Amino acid sequence: MADGQNLTTEIRLPASRAGEIARGTLRLLAGLGYHGVTEMTLANNRRADIAAVGPAGEIAIVEIKSSVADFRSDAKWQDYMPFCDRFYFAVMADFPQELIPEDVGLIVADGFGGAVIREAPVDKLAGARRKAVTLRFARLAACRLQMVNDAGWTDRQVSLT
Amino acid sequence: MADGQNLTTEIRLPASRAGEIARGTLRLLAGLGYHGVTEMTLANNRRADIAAVGPAGEIAIVEIKSSVADFRSDAKWQDYMPFCDRFYFAVMADFPQELIPEDVGLIVADGFGGAVIREAPVDKLAGARRKAVTLRFARLAACRLQMVNDAGWTDRQVSLT
Repeated sequence: MADGQNLTTEIRLPASRAGEIARGTLRLLAGLGYHGVTEMTLANNRRADIAAVGPAGEIAIVEIKSSVADFRSDAKWQDYMPFCDRFYFAVMADFPQELIPEDVGLIVADGFGGAVIREAPVDKLAGARRKAVTLRFARLAACRLQMVNDAGWTDRQVSLT
Repeated sequence: MADGQNLTTEIRLPASRAGEIARGTLRLLAGLGYHGVTEMTLANNRRADIAAVGPAGEIAIVEIKSSVADFRSDAKWQDYMPFCDRFYFAVMADFPQELIPEDVGLIVADGFGGAVIREAPVDKLAGARRKAVTLRFARLAACRLQMVNDAGWTDRQVSLT
């Protein structure tokens, strides 16, 4: 397809259900003032599906569950909670919501957007932890942006991505 | 040009001298562990050409000067210094380096990379300012990344970009 004629490919949907949920959740979060990145590795080596930073530095982590099987096989989601002020699961509309624990947030999303079905309780991070998570987020986002903007460049600090 | 055949356009040079200096400087900084973004507006409404964050949260600001005329017409560069630990000018190799003040850093770059010709003195930010600059940087980088990755989405918070 010629340059300038690829409008249809530019708005294509992500290739997977998890990718669709991620895109819609990032749009939802941005509308709420939280700018997010996907797949951020935390200091405990767990990888959060989405981490997002709010206007006052609030940190949200979202774990995406593309299916019941995906949810049931996950024994590690509680490991994310010490790294955020608010924790959410994000699922599609066909997911049985009663499976989601009641003491975490719940987002329903598709490839185009989403909604916060249940707000997450706030468990405020201590200052040093918040600082460390924000720094990691900042450097990761900038590194990824550079990789996208500068196709001739590849980051050598694999630890960041 | 067909998809998959645009290798040459992917590695094309930026369209301007300032764009070339920016790209090379971002590559240089990344090699030093500083991940940067271009055109970050500061709390005083000045727009830094490049802001970058180091591994321990160090903040560098780089002002790009594409020509002597560009340098001479700039009366505002000192306004960036209260927002960073290190301040640099970045110029191309043909720029007369003696024009650059001796008490700031100097980078020489082209579209492919660069070098720190003179290290910037450190003027350490206070904690609250560093926190605010890092937060702004984090949200800006993530917002830009989302705009690149999600062509169907546009940020409505113009203040961020």
